[in-house]
Amino acid sequence: MNILEKRILKDGYILDDDIIKVDSFLNHKLDIKFLKELAKIIKDYFKDKNINKILTIEASGIALATLISEEFDYAPVVFAKKQRNKNLGKDLYESHVKSFTTDKEYRVTVSKKFLSEDDHLLIVDDFLAEGNALKGLIDISDQAGAKIEGISVAVEKGFQDGGKIIRDMGYDLLSLAIIDSINSGEIKFK
Amino acid sequence: MNILEKRILKDGYILDDDIIKVDSFLNHKLDIKFLKELAKIIKDYFKDKNINKILTIEASGIALATLISEEFDYAPVVFAKKQRNKNLGKDLYESHVKSFTTDKEYRVTVSKKFLSEDDHLLIVDDFLAEGNALKGLIDISDQAGAKIEGISVAVEKGFQDGGKIIRDMGYDLLSLAIIDSINSGEIKFK
Repeated sequence: MNILEKRILKDGYILDDDIIKVDSFLNHKLDIKFLKELAKIIKDYFKDKNINKILTIEASGIALATLISEEFDYAPVVFAKKQRNKNLGKDLYESHVKSFTTDKEYRVTVSKKFLSEDDHLLIVDDFLAEGNALKGLIDISDQAGAKIEGISVAVEKGFQDGGKIIRDMGYDLLSLAIIDSINSGEIKFK
Repeated sequence: MNILEKRILKDGYILDDDIIKVDSFLNHKLDIKFLKELAKIIKDYFKDKNINKILTIEASGIALATLISEEFDYAPVVFAKKQRNKNLGKDLYESHVKSFTTDKEYRVTVSKKFLSEDDHLLIVDDFLAEGNALKGLIDISDQAGAKIEGISVAVEKGFQDGGKIIRDMGYDLLSLAIIDSINSGEIKFK
């Protein structure tokens, strides 16, 4: 069992049978020392890739992306923005994402200035469930002509489709903890 | 002229006469190495304060807060969430904030689990204009009974009221760059 799996068992809790909350260290209160350890694991996995930019999405991916940047010689971080307003201005890559949590669709945008065909990306997020946010980031990366060198998430919910979809698309996906099942409040990892 | 002022002159640009954009290094694409230098300046200023937690607000404050945490021996970061939905659940501190950019009101929330009267806070954000976001964070800190040891922002727009309001409330506010005026596209610092 790795450090994230141990931490999930220690500090995670379950809501409504299938929502796992890790808000005490990963996505509301942030244990930066712990996230730095996760960043080092991610760096080690992707160390042979020529990564020059970290792409994530607001808000929960930003802290982990920041710490991963430090491991990759301060590669710049770009975070995609979630837009609810219609009037967006020009010069944006945009994609449409359906939220698993709220069931609403929102737009994800990145300024065209900050992604290009010269980029070798590591895409990062805190959670992977149905994969909608990651598919939005992949779509935007494709629009920019950037090369996706790898994708990493902290927690994958293995009983939802996202991980399989992303892997079937051919991407090198590193999930630090894959939750296989939640039964009667007991969390099992793959 | 300090490193942030120099960087604003080099890479910032002006929209609509009074909006200054620093999205190439501070709040969309993030220059993590540069933000780390800002974090060190903030640490140096507040080094004698007994800070045990960093409080910020999603999304643009998170990267800087993460790097400041590293300077303060990995003090945990808590980021307040911007809520647009009405159904929030219990056990939240909440405050109402009017956005300068969109002119809409939104709610800012922090789980009651993550702030308490034991906390000695450094409040951090990227920008200070009218001070509405900071006032929301101060309100939430007060609800929790936490002690605010200091407040730091990267860029203060000195020609708006926020900085004066926060200082008049008695807080120790460190703004790394204070923009005094923007005239015909020329940025002047205080």
